[in-house]
Amino acid sequence: MRTMGRIKCTISYDGTAFSGYQVQPNKRTVQSVIEEALKKIHKGSSVSITASGRTDAGVHAFGQVFHFESFLEIDVNGWRRALNANLPSDIYVRSVSIVEESFHARFDVKEKTYRYRILNADQADVFRRNYTFHYPFALDLERMRQATTALVGTHDFTSFCSSKTAVSDKVRTIFCIDIIKDNDEIIFEVKGNGFLYNMVRILVGTLLEVGAGKRQEVELSTILEKRDRALAGKTAPASGLYLWDVVYN
Amino acid sequence: MRTMGRIKCTISYDGTAFSGYQVQPNKRTVQSVIEEALKKIHKGSSVSITASGRTDAGVHAFGQVFHFESFLEIDVNGWRRALNANLPSDIYVRSVSIVEESFHARFDVKEKTYRYRILNADQADVFRRNYTFHYPFALDLERMRQATTALVGTHDFTSFCSSKTAVSDKVRTIFCIDIIKDNDEIIFEVKGNGFLYNMVRILVGTLLEVGAGKRQEVELSTILEKRDRALAGKTAPASGLYLWDVVYN
Repeated sequence: MRTMGRIKCTISYDGTAFSGYQVQPNKRTVQSVIEEALKKIHKGSSVSITASGRTDAGVHAFGQVFHFESFLEIDVNGWRRALNANLPSDIYVRSVSIVEESFHARFDVKEKTYRYRILNADQADVFRRNYTFHYPFALDLERMRQATTALVGTHDFTSFCSSKTAVSDKVRTIFCIDIIKDNDEIIFEVKGNGFLYNMVRILVGTLLEVGAGKRQEVELSTILEKRDRALAGKTAPASGLYLWDVVYN
Repeated sequence: MRTMGRIKCTISYDGTAFSGYQVQPNKRTVQSVIEEALKKIHKGSSVSITASGRTDAGVHAFGQVFHFESFLEIDVNGWRRALNANLPSDIYVRSVSIVEESFHARFDVKEKTYRYRILNADQADVFRRNYTFHYPFALDLERMRQATTALVGTHDFTSFCSSKTAVSDKVRTIFCIDIIKDNDEIIFEVKGNGFLYNMVRILVGTLLEVGAGKRQEVELSTILEKRDRALAGKTAPASGLYLWDVVYN
């Protein structure tokens, strides 16, 4: 009998040419492309992967994590090489480790970090058009930072969740929100124990309206309390969003 | 009778999805996409553009320049808006000016700057795969800088020119070559009065072999003297190259 091992992979992907993470019929998705590569490596045997969570169409990942089971005896460098050799250039396996059977890429998540990159410049940049959201208007960083204080902590984030969601428990904890200026970019970094559908994009869209002077900083706590998606700002575009890091117990 | 005006445009483009600059039948090229946009703006009248020079498939531009003639009376901001509204997102018009009839985007070039971006890191970066050349091996910058001294000045660059060229006079002047370390990237900046086919990519390919210790710094003057393409290094990939700036008299 062959021994089975559980493999954990940390990957980057450029979300531009994917219809999101999850398998969908006749669509190019991150999951289906990885499962195809694993099928080749396993000489035609199907292998399913389980990720820390989904990402939407156009959303990127710097540090997405998934696990799978394999009967193959390959060391971690061998797995990294075999996967990268069989994956297209818009997915890259950064690291591989052999983990215990009890490890679960979704259930064991302790903290997730998302980043959102804004290109805050007059002119568009063709080289960053798929990797940032071009927002050419002035932004008051201090006002936006002030506004984030209402969001940090444990709250019902119904107002910051797409109404298309099927999840019923909308209580999540945000550990911190940093707003960093990096040359002509403004980067939002949000750490939390979990995120609802479109949550980071709606948070960023709302904070941008505060930064542009269209909303008051103090509105954020009211928006949270009312649990009404219609009160929050627009959903910021997918191109600026990155699943940056996943931390496990 | 309508007055004709000459318009000068400075544009950026992401070369990834173009079969180079110049019009070719049934290919998506920078020139054909811009001429299509101008035809729309001119209600179906064809307009030809003249650029500072061609760029190859996959090569980018930060500051390509072209000129064209128009009977339309539009101010510079109007031209910028009209062009950007009619161009796809991988071309962007950075600036427009009205120039004298005597201005010529190719004949009047005084200096061109090219940049070549190397991603000098162990791991690939999915977000920069089309915008850099990933070279994961150690490079000695001082040796490469030493090697450039033989190249600066007026020389016959036959050894650094694709044998596919039709140009007979291969004497060009390189004003300077800078090699800059920028985090995990190494950027080659080359300024000259003109460049031969593949010249920057062959220069960079050869300098990388010096930086990796596969060639001696002193070989460069011999390679130049012998006027033989076979003696220089490999042509570095298109993805790292940018036509950065064009300066006019």
